Amino acid sequence: IETKLPKVGTTIFSVMSHLAVQHKAVNLGQGFPDFEPPQALRDAVTRAMANGLNQYAPGIGTAALREQIALKTERLYGHKLSPDSDVTVTSGATEALFAAIAALVRAGDEVIVFDPAYDSYEPAIDLQGARAVHIPLTVPSFSIDWQRVREAITPKTRMILINSPHNPSGAVLSQADLDELAAIVRDTPIIVLSDEVYEHIVYDGAAHQSVLRHAELAERSIVVSSFGKTFHCTGWKVGYAVAPPRLSAEFRKVHQYLTFCTFHPAQVAFAEFLASSPEHYLELPAFYQVKRDRFRQLLAPSRLKLLDVPGGYFQLVDYSAIRDEDDVAFCEWLVKEGGVAAIPLTPFYEKAPGTRLVRLCFAKSDATMDAAAERLCKL
Amino acid sequence: IETKLPKVGTTIFSVMSHLAVQHKAVNLGQGFPDFEPPQALRDAVTRAMANGLNQYAPGIGTAALREQIALKTERLYGHKLSPDSDVTVTSGATEALFAAIAALVRAGDEVIVFDPAYDSYEPAIDLQGARAVHIPLTVPSFSIDWQRVREAITPKTRMILINSPHNPSGAVLSQADLDELAAIVRDTPIIVLSDEVYEHIVYDGAAHQSVLRHAELAERSIVVSSFGKTFHCTGWKVGYAVAPPRLSAEFRKVHQYLTFCTFHPAQVAFAEFLASSPEHYLELPAFYQVKRDRFRQLLAPSRLKLLDVPGGYFQLVDYSAIRDEDDVAFCEWLVKEGGVAAIPLTPFYEKAPGTRLVRLCFAKSDATMDAAAERLCKL
Ligand SMILES: CSCCC(=O)C(=O)O
Ligand SMILES: CSCCC(=O)C(=O)O
Repeated sequence: IETKLPKVGTTIFSVMSHLAVQHKAVNLGQGFPDFEPPQALRDAVTRAMANGLNQYAPGIGTAALREQIALKTERLYGHKLSPDSDVTVTSGATEALFAAIAALVRAGDEVIVFDPAYDSYEPAIDLQGARAVHIPLTVPSFSIDWQRVREAITPKTRMILINSPHNPSGAVLSQADLDELAAIVRDTPIIVLSDEVYEHIVYDGAAHQSVLRHAELAERSIVVSSFGKTFHCTGWKVGYAVAPPRLSAEFRKVHQYLTFCTFHPAQVAFAEFLASSPEHYLELPAFYQVKRDRFRQLLAPSRLKLLDVPGGYFQLVDYSAIRDEDDVAFCEWLVKEGGVAAIPLTPFYEKAPGTRLVRLCFAKSDATMDAAAERLCKL
Repeated sequence: IETKLPKVGTTIFSVMSHLAVQHKAVNLGQGFPDFEPPQALRDAVTRAMANGLNQYAPGIGTAALREQIALKTERLYGHKLSPDSDVTVTSGATEALFAAIAALVRAGDEVIVFDPAYDSYEPAIDLQGARAVHIPLTVPSFSIDWQRVREAITPKTRMILINSPHNPSGAVLSQADLDELAAIVRDTPIIVLSDEVYEHIVYDGAAHQSVLRHAELAERSIVVSSFGKTFHCTGWKVGYAVAPPRLSAEFRKVHQYLTFCTFHPAQVAFAEFLASSPEHYLELPAFYQVKRDRFRQLLAPSRLKLLDVPGGYFQLVDYSAIRDEDDVAFCEWLVKEGGVAAIPLTPFYEKAPGTRLVRLCFAKSDATMDAAAERLCKL
């Protein structure tokens, strides 16, 4: 059978998690916490099931959850949303990203993505008969060279896909970046797709620069976020997309036929929990900063060089003092011989730049971190 | 913004459910049970959450659930599946249908669908730059005229999309139908997509004719089913697709970037429940036959004419003795003036045939049925 996605194999996250199990490695590869969502949240799911909320939710998400998303957004970013016309609950951020691209990118269009780019972006673009235009981020800051963006714009540019805090690098966009972006898209029909799934995980007192803080950008953006990242339940698959009505309308046309709705009891639970425990997400930066700092301290004696981590829950490390090989080979060696699963950056590049960097997830318990660090310090 | 889906509005299911709430109507429109999934199943979800299964499931589904799906399929249809290469768990049947179409239908292809066709099929086809070729089912039996299918085949035909038990009509395909289909696709590259979400709901002692019973068809088919329909939890969004390895491989390439995985605790729960309580799905035909027969009896005194219901949980009724208007107008009148929400058939047709039929869902408690019947008998 001839494939529609010749460049796609099994996602690197599944490959590495599989190898981690096979080699009994500590899994710092695929990004997920090894601790639990709040008990109150789990109890709320059980309660929703007992209360008979086991049939389809409204396709766009429950009213209560969309309301809470709007409240949170206004509180954090000062941006007012209509729960009815601007907010759509999805089966995780992955579905939201796919639906946004499927709804708005047409055959022949170009979408600007920044490499390293999360691996679901390009297949979603390819499936529309469109083309991803890759712009590498500047290493080692993983910042955007806006001049390169200006040069990449063509009449076919339909969308610019940004991601902050950035996966895998942890880099965050600044207000100046958003101003640059706004200037570029001004007076064009270009739509911004902003992947902000780590919106609540920024460090050192910084504020997340959501495009929703930027009135001009908010008008032409679809912003995607994820309750899985925020509430330590990546396997619950509840995310959402926020966009002005004319974009939400197109988004919803596709979403309703992609999954229709996501797990109803969890929607009820998130709405309750957001209303009763807003401190959870407000305290998330501090919660993860302890982990980040602890992980970095544990790795300090190792031969890995640690890059800065302004946001997200991944640590990039330079392994060039340990082995002279590309990152895919290093990750294979590391999972087999070193007993730690990591994620290479090459799969997220159109043209891999040959950096000697791999990604380690520190959304982990102390015990997991300790076990991984012990192994990593031996390399 | 120019739309990619000019024919698509809000799905009729959402529209009618919304109107049902607004007019305090008994909702026999959107297809969902108003009774609960088994307590043991809900308990198993709670247990899975307590057991720390809250992070990503494997993208293709948990091993235990894929194993149970394979066991059930062999038991019911005598078809052996490899859980590793043939079974993929999805975010409901809706995602499975979309992923199958996105993975295998290319721009310029044609897909044969039978009208009335479930409303997610055509948008999914359209989004591939492909074309749905509509063949109306023969009324009132809602059977396939295979001669018309033979005439509709062109070198561009990529897929034939069948649905048995059929939504909205309840018609079921026979073994002879499958033989006809097999003869048509033999020696062609045509793929069969078989929507069998009501596989466990067939009446009067009949056996569901899955394409998986038909060795030749099974080799070129993707079969989609739904735990939501089978276990009374349409809001849990767990479905699956079964296909030979070369088709599953393509399917999974798309699925991993569409949703990656569905709600992990429910996957664990379904695996446990399928292993411990296979009688649930074995007894489903009897369970729903009681409901079907009761509903038909309640409506016998009404002026609605009841069509036969060989499968599924919908009753088609002819309302021509009550009002002389098209089915959309009738449903609007019925939800407002009659206090019952139904689903018109017109949205599922390319060219509506002007039948005077609407769909009523009887996956309902006795109380709901009684309330609806009282209103319907007054018309
Ligand atoms: C859907 S598996 C990938 C999880 C993730 O976001 C990551 O590891 O970057
Ligand atoms: C996804 S809402 C539609 C539910 C359904 O399958 C139906 O009512 O036919």
